[in-house]
Amino acid sequence: MADRQYVALPQNVEQAEFTTAVRKFTEILGADNVLTAEEQLLPYMKIMMPVDEAQHAPSAALIATEVEQIQRIVRVCNEHKIPIWPISTGKNLGYGSAPPGSRGQVVLDLKRMNRIIDVDPVLCTALVEPGVTYQQLYDYIHERKYPLWLSMPAPSAIVGPVGNTLDRGVGYTPYGEHFMFQCGMEVILPNGDILRTGMGGIPNSNTWQVFKWGYGPYLDGIFTQSNFGVVTKLGFWLMPAPDVYKPFAISYPDEADIVSLVDAFRPLRIAGIVPNAMVFVGTLYEASATVRRSQYYTQKGATPAEIIRRIRQEHNIGAWTAYGALYGTKEQVDVSWKIVTDVVRATGKGTIITEEDAGNNPAFRYRADLSRGNMTLREFGLYNWRGGGGSMWFAPVSQARGSETLKQVQMATSILNKHGLDYVGEFIVGGRDMHHIIDVLFDRTDPDEMKAAHTCFGELLDEFNRAGYGVYRVNTAFMDKVAESYGPVQRQVHQALKRALDPNGIVAPGKSGIWV
Amino acid sequence: MADRQYVALPQNVEQAEFTTAVRKFTEILGADNVLTAEEQLLPYMKIMMPVDEAQHAPSAALIATEVEQIQRIVRVCNEHKIPIWPISTGKNLGYGSAPPGSRGQVVLDLKRMNRIIDVDPVLCTALVEPGVTYQQLYDYIHERKYPLWLSMPAPSAIVGPVGNTLDRGVGYTPYGEHFMFQCGMEVILPNGDILRTGMGGIPNSNTWQVFKWGYGPYLDGIFTQSNFGVVTKLGFWLMPAPDVYKPFAISYPDEADIVSLVDAFRPLRIAGIVPNAMVFVGTLYEASATVRRSQYYTQKGATPAEIIRRIRQEHNIGAWTAYGALYGTKEQVDVSWKIVTDVVRATGKGTIITEEDAGNNPAFRYRADLSRGNMTLREFGLYNWRGGGGSMWFAPVSQARGSETLKQVQMATSILNKHGLDYVGEFIVGGRDMHHIIDVLFDRTDPDEMKAAHTCFGELLDEFNRAGYGVYRVNTAFMDKVAESYGPVQRQVHQALKRALDPNGIVAPGKSGIWV
Repeated sequence: MADRQYVALPQNVEQAEFTTAVRKFTEILGADNVLTAEEQLLPYMKIMMPVDEAQHAPSAALIATEVEQIQRIVRVCNEHKIPIWPISTGKNLGYGSAPPGSRGQVVLDLKRMNRIIDVDPVLCTALVEPGVTYQQLYDYIHERKYPLWLSMPAPSAIVGPVGNTLDRGVGYTPYGEHFMFQCGMEVILPNGDILRTGMGGIPNSNTWQVFKWGYGPYLDGIFTQSNFGVVTKLGFWLMPAPDVYKPFAISYPDEADIVSLVDAFRPLRIAGIVPNAMVFVGTLYEASATVRRSQYYTQKGATPAEIIRRIRQEHNIGAWTAYGALYGTKEQVDVSWKIVTDVVRATGKGTIITEEDAGNNPAFRYRADLSRGNMTLREFGLYNWRGGGGSMWFAPVSQARGSETLKQVQMATSILNKHGLDYVGEFIVGGRDMHHIIDVLFDRTDPDEMKAAHTCFGELLDEFNRAGYGVYRVNTAFMDKVAESYGPVQRQVHQALKRALDPNGIVAPGKSGIWV
Repeated sequence: MADRQYVALPQNVEQAEFTTAVRKFTEILGADNVLTAEEQLLPYMKIMMPVDEAQHAPSAALIATEVEQIQRIVRVCNEHKIPIWPISTGKNLGYGSAPPGSRGQVVLDLKRMNRIIDVDPVLCTALVEPGVTYQQLYDYIHERKYPLWLSMPAPSAIVGPVGNTLDRGVGYTPYGEHFMFQCGMEVILPNGDILRTGMGGIPNSNTWQVFKWGYGPYLDGIFTQSNFGVVTKLGFWLMPAPDVYKPFAISYPDEADIVSLVDAFRPLRIAGIVPNAMVFVGTLYEASATVRRSQYYTQKGATPAEIIRRIRQEHNIGAWTAYGALYGTKEQVDVSWKIVTDVVRATGKGTIITEEDAGNNPAFRYRADLSRGNMTLREFGLYNWRGGGGSMWFAPVSQARGSETLKQVQMATSILNKHGLDYVGEFIVGGRDMHHIIDVLFDRTDPDEMKAAHTCFGELLDEFNRAGYGVYRVNTAFMDKVAESYGPVQRQVHQALKRALDPNGIVAPGKSGIWV
C-alpha cells in the first residue's frame, strides 16, 4: 500500500500521509466503501462545466451510512489535514455535479445514507437523511396513501431534498422556496460534535420539525451554501394535498410582452392568489422539450433569430409561455381562476391554455408535473438542444418588475450570441423577486466552444454584476468570482465563521468562495 | 470629571478608565447624548421582572443616530472593554424592557435613529432604522395612501419592527412570523465593519429588500436573539391591503374544548385557509381587557376556580375564545368563511361571533385591530389584572395538536397556583407549531410575591423542559437557564461564533446566554 498511486493528492499532503489516512478511512468504513482507483472514481469526475476534469479530480471517495462514521472521518481529516467534499445524490447538474470544488478533495458520498426517518401525515412534516431521493420519498408517501405533496426541482426523481435545500434550490409548488420550508437540521461539525438546530437540542422534544427557530441565534442558514459542517438529517414541511389542482399556461406572441406580463402577475403572486412561483419561459427553453437545434441548424455559433422565429411558428410556441397553478377546494380554485383570467384579459393578448386545451403537449405536461410535485425528467431535454453535455446555470436575481426583464434578455442574448451560444432562458417570479434562469449550453467535445463558454460565463457574471445583479447560486468553477461580487465584508464574515467552526479547513474548502 | 460617580461600573473596568471612555463617547455624540446621572438613567432601570433593579443597572446610556457614530463607539468599547447593550425602542415588555441583561453595561439607545428609509408600494417592501415605531410607519403609509398593511406585536404603536423582528417576535396578520418576512439587514459588526446581508453587498443593487438569501451561508438568522453586532437597518415585507377583512371569534364553554378546537383548526391553518395565526384565549387573558382581579377577589394567592367561573358567566366569556381572520376579495372571503363555519359546526358546540355580532366588545375589537395591523394598546389590560407592575412571558413551543393543550394548561396552572399566581394564558397556532403564551403576572411592590414569582418562573421552565418543551424567547433574568435547556453543543456553537465576531465580548454580553 505504501507505493499506492492516487488520481490526485490533497493539497500539501504527501502520498505516505494520504495512504495512512486512507487506511484509517478503511478501518471506519470497510475497504468496499473507500474508493481510490481511477475507474472507481469516474462517477465523481464527470462535470458539465467548461474546464478540464483534472481541475476537479477527487483524491478518493468515501461512502458513509452512519453519523458515527462521519464523526470519525472528520477526526481523521483534522489529524491529516485532508479536505472532504460532502455530496448527497451528487446530481447538482449545471452547478458542478458530484466532483469536488477543487482538485484533491476526498468526496464524502452520502447517497447510501438514505433513511426516511419520519413522515408525519397529520403535521405534514418529514425528516430524512442526505441520500433520500424525491422518488424514494414520493414512493414512501404513495405506498402509505398519505395526502401529502412534494416540491422538487426539475431533476426531481434522481435528486433529493437535503442536497437541494442546502444549496438553496427551488421547486415549483407553493412550497417551492425549499429553505423557507425547512425545519430542523442535524449537522456533524468539523470537530465531530453533533449539532441539532432549532428545537433539536431539547431532550425528549417532539417539536424539532414543527418550529424552525429555537432560542438564540438561528443557525440553520449558515449551513446552507456553505462548508461549516456535514448535514446528516434535514427536516422540512410537506404540502397537504389539495382537493383540486389546476395548472395553466398563457402564451404570448411577442418578446416585449414579458414586460406587461410580469407587471400583471406580480400582484397575484404577492397576494398569493397564484400560490406557486410563476415561470415565464422563453422560446428555446420551451422548445427544448421537443426540438433539437440540429433539426433546424447545423452550423456553429449562435442560432439565428429567424430560426428561432421558425421554431416558434412550426411548434406553436409563444415568445413567452407563462405557467402557474391553482390549488384548493373546488370553490377556492373557481374564485382564483376568475381572477387569473380577468388579469390575462386585461393584458390584452395572452392565450390561456388549460390542462384540457393542452392535451398531451409535452411542454405543458412537464410544467404541470413540476408544479404538482410529480416526478419528471423532461427538463433534461435542454441537454439535447445543442448536445455535447455542457451546461452551466446563470441565475441573476432582480426585482419582479416588467422593466427588469427585456433589458436583461437583451444583455444576456448579446453576450451569449457574441460567444456563439444561445439564449435559453426563463424568469421565475417568486413574488417581490424574480430569478432569471439561463442555461448556458455548449458542446464539451468542442474545444473552441468550451473556451467560448468559459469566457462567456465570466462575462455574463461581470456585466450583470456591473448592472447591479447578483446570482443566487453558481457552479463550482466560478464560486470565488461570485463571492467577490457580494463585497469584502460578507466574505470576511464567512471566513471568520469558517475559522471558528473549522479551523483546519477540512470541510469543502472553497465552497461558495469560503477558504479558511 | 476624574472623581465622577457612576450608577454602576462595567465589570472589571476601573472608574478612571470608564471616565476616559465616557469622554470619548462624549466626543462622538455630544454631552447631551451621553447619560450617566442616576436621574437620567431611570428610564433604563425600569423592569417588570422579579429581581432587584440593581442587578440590571446600566453604567451609562448613549443616544446614537448615525451609523458612523456606532462604528466609533464599538471601537472605543473594544479599546476599553466596555460592554454595550443595544436597544431600539426599549419596550421589550415582559421580556426585560430597556435595561441591560446584566449590571454595568452601557445602554446603546437607538430610538432616535428613526428614519424610514424606503417604503415601496409596488413591491410591498420597507427599509427602516431601529428607532422607527409601528405608529410612525403606520402614519407614514396612511399619509401616502399606500395600500399596505402592517403586522405588529401587541404593544404595537410604541414598539418597532427592528426590535421585534430581531427578538423573533410575532404578530397576528398573515405576515405575523416577522423574521420570515424580514429581508436584508445592515449590521455594525463589533470590529466596526458594516455588513449588509443578502443582496446588500452588491454595488448598485436594487434587490436588497426583495430577495432574502444572497449567496453563500445565509447570515441574517445569526443576528436575531443574539449579540454578534448592532443592526442599524432592517428590510421587511408588507402585506398588500385586501379588499375585504373579516375577523371572527368562536366561543367555547368548556376548558376541555381546547383539545378538539386545535385539532379542528390546524388543517385550516396548514392549508392557509385561515391565513393568520389563530389565537385560542383562556378566560383570564380574555377578561383582562375589561376586568380587574380586585373587583372580584382581594385576598393574596391564586384566584380561586369559582371566581374564574363567575367572571366567565358575568362577562359572557368562554373558557376559550378562538380568534382568526380572513383576507382577500369578497368572493375569496365568502368561500373561506363557508369552510370555517362548516368546521365550527362539525366541532358541535362553538358559538361564532362576527364583527357585527361583537359590536363594541373591547376584547373582540382588540383582536380585530391586532389581526389587521391597527395600532392598539389594549393588551396592557393584562398589567391591571393583578396590578403592581410585574410581568414575565412564559412561552413554550409545542406541536399544534389537541393532545398538547390540556396537559400544558394543567401543568402550568398547578405550578402557578402553588406559588399563589394565576394562569393567564393563550395558545397561538402558527400551523404545525403552537406557542403557549402565559403572562406570569405579579405585584412587584410585594416582596413575597416577587420571590414567589421568581421561584415559580424557574419551576415552569424546569417542569416544561423536563416534559420536552422549550421556550422560544425569555426575559433577561433567565437567559442562561433557557440557553442551557437547548443542550451543550448549540451553546458551544453560539460561543464559537461570538468569539469569532466579537473577541472582546463588547456587544450585549449574556444575551441569549451567550458569553465570550
